[in-house]
Amino acid sequence: MKRKAFIKNSALTAFSISTFGIKNSFSNSMATANTIKVNSNRISNRIFELAKFGLDDKGRGYRVAYTKADIEGRAWFMDLMKKAGLNPIIDAAGNIIGKRKGKNASLKPIAFGSHIDMVPDGGNYDGTVGSIGALEIIETLNENNIITDHPLELIIFANEEGGTIGSIAMVGNLTPEGLLQKSQSGVTMAEGIKAIGGNPDHIQSCIRYKGELHAWLELHIEQGGILESENLKIGVVEGIVGLRHWIVTLEGFANHAGTTPMNRRQDALLAASKFIIAVNEVVNSVEGNQVGTVGKMALQPGAYNVIPGKVVLGLEIRDLSDDKIDMLFAQIEKRAAIIANESKVKIIFELEANASKPALTNKVLQQAIFNASNELGLTTKLMQSGAGHDSQEVAFIAPSAMIFIPSVGGISHSPKEFSTILDITNGTNVLLKTILAIDKVIAGLEINH
Amino acid sequence: MKRKAFIKNSALTAFSISTFGIKNSFSNSMATANTIKVNSNRISNRIFELAKFGLDDKGRGYRVAYTKADIEGRAWFMDLMKKAGLNPIIDAAGNIIGKRKGKNASLKPIAFGSHIDMVPDGGNYDGTVGSIGALEIIETLNENNIITDHPLELIIFANEEGGTIGSIAMVGNLTPEGLLQKSQSGVTMAEGIKAIGGNPDHIQSCIRYKGELHAWLELHIEQGGILESENLKIGVVEGIVGLRHWIVTLEGFANHAGTTPMNRRQDALLAASKFIIAVNEVVNSVEGNQVGTVGKMALQPGAYNVIPGKVVLGLEIRDLSDDKIDMLFAQIEKRAAIIANESKVKIIFELEANASKPALTNKVLQQAIFNASNELGLTTKLMQSGAGHDSQEVAFIAPSAMIFIPSVGGISHSPKEFSTILDITNGTNVLLKTILAIDKVIAGLEINH
Repeated sequence: MKRKAFIKNSALTAFSISTFGIKNSFSNSMATANTIKVNSNRISNRIFELAKFGLDDKGRGYRVAYTKADIEGRAWFMDLMKKAGLNPIIDAAGNIIGKRKGKNASLKPIAFGSHIDMVPDGGNYDGTVGSIGALEIIETLNENNIITDHPLELIIFANEEGGTIGSIAMVGNLTPEGLLQKSQSGVTMAEGIKAIGGNPDHIQSCIRYKGELHAWLELHIEQGGILESENLKIGVVEGIVGLRHWIVTLEGFANHAGTTPMNRRQDALLAASKFIIAVNEVVNSVEGNQVGTVGKMALQPGAYNVIPGKVVLGLEIRDLSDDKIDMLFAQIEKRAAIIANESKVKIIFELEANASKPALTNKVLQQAIFNASNELGLTTKLMQSGAGHDSQEVAFIAPSAMIFIPSVGGISHSPKEFSTILDITNGTNVLLKTILAIDKVIAGLEINH
Repeated sequence: MKRKAFIKNSALTAFSISTFGIKNSFSNSMATANTIKVNSNRISNRIFELAKFGLDDKGRGYRVAYTKADIEGRAWFMDLMKKAGLNPIIDAAGNIIGKRKGKNASLKPIAFGSHIDMVPDGGNYDGTVGSIGALEIIETLNENNIITDHPLELIIFANEEGGTIGSIAMVGNLTPEGLLQKSQSGVTMAEGIKAIGGNPDHIQSCIRYKGELHAWLELHIEQGGILESENLKIGVVEGIVGLRHWIVTLEGFANHAGTTPMNRRQDALLAASKFIIAVNEVVNSVEGNQVGTVGKMALQPGAYNVIPGKVVLGLEIRDLSDDKIDMLFAQIEKRAAIIANESKVKIIFELEANASKPALTNKVLQQAIFNASNELGLTTKLMQSGAGHDSQEVAFIAPSAMIFIPSVGGISHSPKEFSTILDITNGTNVLLKTILAIDKVIAGLEINH
């Protein structure tokens, strides 16, 4: 298979007209591939360039998907893609796709990229690092006259921060209802997609099917503090956690805080407090990287002198194993029943529709990232991604993997989000080496979903 | 002293022109006073009449102080006062005062009454019972041709629900800053006072000084469930609790709920939950009727997937003893320091300006209420008022007491607020008997403040 592919490939390139020539070309590229490095300054400059799109007058970033800033940032990025010879197109979901021919057109493309939209008041590294890093791969290959066997695709997914909309569409899971949902920019997803040059009326034309891609790779900031605190350089992502959200309603009885004795209260906030502590205890009661959070809460009526009658809060659980999420939630429900009984407060759980399944990455790709990191002398850690990414969607249709680099202070979705240019460059070099390595790999690339 | 007062009195009334006549008149009134009862139907009808002012189209009550409904309700009430011969005036704070002459103009007035404004979406008994009950006293005395020795004053305080504004003004504690505060009606206190016929520019003209009044009595619904649950008819109020409010700010660190491991969090909501439970435990750790409540809370940023970085909550403690409030708060502070340390969350307390001191009622008046209740065959309980009332202000300038009647279900400040007409009539009869009894008392009426 490898030999056959190699011959097939050779017939399609200008690099080789004889077996000898092919051999030379191959050897040269491989020699180069082992030593070539991406351009750190160019990456750094482009991060600052892109950051200008969506900057408000206080210097804060608002390049929210489908807004003017997003449209302008995308135009800037596509212009760079064109200059790099990619000839980008916008698919029906608004994803930007740039293709670079390989030596063998019959091989499936190796795709890589990320997103350039951001959360409101977000940082300049989430998505940007993987997008500019992906473009840097193309330019580095161009400058070193390297043509891979497989075609390459640089993909910039649209509206990642608003619910990985572009990648959901690409794997065929964006429903008509989903298109009608409001995006953070204020318009519906359909209107937003239209605004960035997509075609929501023919959304299905963007679908990529299982097995179409050789692999998908995404370089990204960790968005957590694990790599930094363990002084490690590269995170090899084992999988992207699944998550579930529940609306939890606690119904007690609102009454006068001055005239209702302590032993006659049905205080929904006191019960909610016990519940929040129970969630924390249950999540901490077992080994592993699972997380459980109560991140939002509202209470009624909300006055100094009235015992809270009702509390509505949001519970989130994330883990790489759906079974573990089941188990943790069952324990939380048990604890809630005890609290409800003791507090004379009703506790009701309602699962939100946005649950996502855990997405495991491909082991061959993981190993390629480990190898690339080792060759570059970079320390590594196999770790989960606690945050969601387009990669979790692409994993439905392609063998997928992610490369993490350290986030300073573990901070993300914040103007304080930061990664050093050294770490970004390291990550991009790992991405480059990994692409070149898997360009030669044809076995073991199964889709895990 | 008693004899002297009696003679002085006789000279000023048409009831007696000879010692014999005085004696007869006295005996007759006393005989009548021991048997006369208020008119239950009239009370009941007037409660329903007054409820019409401020009713919205859903049948809910919005007779908030200074609004059109308040102004109209007051006009209706003053009209009834006029018909009862009281000739009401409006003082500079908007309080309605109706005077009824006594036999002895040199004696200090016995004052009684309550308020007719209500909280938004409130009930028809809080304040109303004591106001209509007070008017009923006047009419019952009129119908039975009874003239008390002391002059009587019926006082309807303005804007009780918005912070006992009328009574604070009467005791000389309404500041220029207080006048500029927004009331619940939307206008400032000064504008509101003007709207109801007061004169905020000469607010001090409404001040009543220490010793001006013989006594102050207020009939009121309990607003709690103690009398009902113990199956008792009359609450003799020992005192009105003092209260303090604190703004408690918990500062953690907002971070991504998916990527931040459980052991690296500074979760302000988790710390707030521990704090709320600590407040409950501290308040329950000692004997007594003290109450402690966290009734409001806001958190930031407030999303499923972000660990709460900041929580601001409202803490209230009420008790009849200021020392106990001090002691409880000191314990809460200690617990907070431990929680702050364990949770890596900063906890800051800020005392609000609205603290009120406990107000003890007068023991002679308490005894008179016990006696009146016993004579009427009504069971009693010495109890505290957990809610604030105008009486706590009047206690600064006059010997004061309160009579409580049961609240069905202990519910108040709600459309579900209810007291039976039987209990209301009982309470009004106790008020009548108490007034007639203290009309003859001149010793032991000290001001407790």
